[in-house]
Amino acid sequence: MNILVNMHLHPDQITQLEALPDVHLIDRDEFTPAMGSTIDVILAWNPTAAAIMSAPNHVRFIQTMSAGVDYLPLADLARQDVLVANASGIHGESIAESVLGYILNFTRALNAPTNRDPHNFWAASQLRHQITELPGRRALIVGAGHIGTTISHVLQQLGVRTTGVNHDGHAVAGFDQIISTATLMAQAPAADFIINILPLTDQTHHLYNDDFFQRQPGHPYFINVGRGPSVDTAALIRALKVGKVAGAALDVFEEEPLPASSPLWQAPNVQLTPHVSGTISDVATGVFKIFYPNLVSLMDHGTLAVNAVDLARGY
Amino acid sequence: MNILVNMHLHPDQITQLEALPDVHLIDRDEFTPAMGSTIDVILAWNPTAAAIMSAPNHVRFIQTMSAGVDYLPLADLARQDVLVANASGIHGESIAESVLGYILNFTRALNAPTNRDPHNFWAASQLRHQITELPGRRALIVGAGHIGTTISHVLQQLGVRTTGVNHDGHAVAGFDQIISTATLMAQAPAADFIINILPLTDQTHHLYNDDFFQRQPGHPYFINVGRGPSVDTAALIRALKVGKVAGAALDVFEEEPLPASSPLWQAPNVQLTPHVSGTISDVATGVFKIFYPNLVSLMDHGTLAVNAVDLARGY
Repeated sequence: MNILVNMHLHPDQITQLEALPDVHLIDRDEFTPAMGSTIDVILAWNPTAAAIMSAPNHVRFIQTMSAGVDYLPLADLARQDVLVANASGIHGESIAESVLGYILNFTRALNAPTNRDPHNFWAASQLRHQITELPGRRALIVGAGHIGTTISHVLQQLGVRTTGVNHDGHAVAGFDQIISTATLMAQAPAADFIINILPLTDQTHHLYNDDFFQRQPGHPYFINVGRGPSVDTAALIRALKVGKVAGAALDVFEEEPLPASSPLWQAPNVQLTPHVSGTISDVATGVFKIFYPNLVSLMDHGTLAVNAVDLARGY
Repeated sequence: MNILVNMHLHPDQITQLEALPDVHLIDRDEFTPAMGSTIDVILAWNPTAAAIMSAPNHVRFIQTMSAGVDYLPLADLARQDVLVANASGIHGESIAESVLGYILNFTRALNAPTNRDPHNFWAASQLRHQITELPGRRALIVGAGHIGTTISHVLQQLGVRTTGVNHDGHAVAGFDQIISTATLMAQAPAADFIINILPLTDQTHHLYNDDFFQRQPGHPYFINVGRGPSVDTAALIRALKVGKVAGAALDVFEEEPLPASSPLWQAPNVQLTPHVSGTISDVATGVFKIFYPNLVSLMDHGTLAVNAVDLARGY
C-alpha cells in the first residue's frame, strides 16, 4: 500500500500509519514521476495527484483536505472507480468564526474606511448611525450541513435568528427555521445577513444573480464562504452600487487568485479575504481523524468509513 | 421640576415623563442661557450642562448616557451636592460585540493589509500561519463589572478561557478565574488577549506602561475599550514595534479626537475606532430605564434608585 503524502503530518501520525501492515509512505518531496503508477492512496490533492490520475494508475482512494471537491476531475475519477473522501466537518468552527468576524465588521463599523484615514477618523457621529447590535438580526444560511449548522449555533448564541436552506426544506436541528432552495429562489424571508456555504455544482453555479439580489425584501449583507462561481460577481457589484445589498464579504471568487483588475476592488463596502476562512491551525489533526479510519477500512473491507464523496452528485 | 433634555427621547417616553406631577421638559433646542438657574434635573451631559453647573444653580440630579463619568467635574459636583447617575449596564452587549470583532479581525486575519492590496492579495499561504481558532485562547479582562462579565460570557461561548481582574481578587461569577489588580501588575498570567474596560481614575492613569507591557509572559493582543489615559500610548507603540504586543485595538485615546499626527497611525498591526464601541442603536430606551426610576425616586424620596455614582471614587 503506497501512500503519497501531499501534506504535513505530525511525527506521531507518521508512526501510526507506518505501524499498519504493508504501508509505505512517500512524502511529496521524495516523489518522482516514475513512482506515479505505484501509488495506491493519495492524501491531499495537488498538481502531482492530478498528473498521476491522468495517466494509467492503480490509485484506489483519494483523501482531500477540503470540504468541497469541485476542483477534482470528478467524472474522470468516477470512470476510474476511485474512492474519494472529503474533509467535511473539520472547517466548521473556523468558518463560523470568520463569518462572525465579517458580520461584526459590518455591524460595529470596525472596518469603516474612515478608521484608516487620519484626517477623517473622528467621524463618530456618522458611524454611530451604522452601528447595530446582533440580538434580533436575521441570518439566512444557505447550506444547512455541518458548516451551516455550526455558523447557526455561533450566531444564535449572540441572539441572531437563523433560517437554514436545504434542498427540500426538511427539518434540521440547530436552526430557528428551515426553508427549501425553491423557497429561497422564489420568496426568501427578509434577512440582515445572507451566508453562502453551498458546494459548487451545476445547480449552484450563478445561483446568486441579478434576479436573486433584486428579489431580496431586506437590505442584506452578503457573505460568500462557499465557492466563488455560485455568485454572478457582476450582478453582486450592481446590487452593491444601487444599495440593494448593503455590503459583501467574499472569501472565494469566480477567478482565483482574484485578479488586481477585478471591479470588486472598487465596489462599495466590500470585505475581501484570499480563500482562508476555513483555515485551521492544525489541519493535520483534523484530516488525520478522517483519513486514518478510511485507510483502515479500505485495507479491511475495500470501502471508506467516513466522508465518502458521491462523485456523481459532486459532494 | 424643570428637566433639561440633552438627548433624543422617544415620543412615548416624553409622554410618560410629562405625566409625572409638576414635571416640565426643556429640550436642548429650546434652552436659552437665562433658563440655566431654573433647571432641577439634567438628562445627558453636554457643554450646556457644564455651563449651568459652573454658575449658581439648583440642579439636584444629573443622569449621564455613559458608564464612565471621568469627563464630569466630579469634585465640583460633589461640592454642589448634586446626585449623579451613570448609564452602566446598557453598553455591555455592544462593547462585547465590538471586542469580539476586534479579536476575530486579529485571529482570522480579516483586516490584514494585503486584503486591501490588489497586487499582494493572494498571499494566502502567509496569512494562513497567522490564523488561529478561539477555543483554548486566554483572555485577561481587566475590569470585572457588568461590561467585563458580558465580554467574558461572549468569549466563553466561543471556547475562550477568561481571567477577570478586580481590585482585591474577590470571586465574581462568569469568569474562569479572578485575580486582583496587584497580581495583574506583579505577575499576570499569560494571555492571548488583554482587554481594558477600567474606569479612568488616578489609580488607572497610565496603568498600562512600559513596565506592564514588558512584563507580559505571552505575546498578547491589547484591546482598550475603557478610557484612553489608562494607557501610556508611547509605551504601547514601543511594545508593538518590538513585537512584545502582537497587535492593538483601540477605541479610546489619550487625546480625543485622535490627532492625525498621532504615531498610532504608523504603528504595526493596530485597529482604530473613534470611541464608538459602546454605541447602541436605541440609546434612549437604555438610558430611560435608568433615568425614569431615578427621577421618580428623587421626587418621592430625594434619592436615586439605581446607578448612583460615588463622586469621590469617580465611578
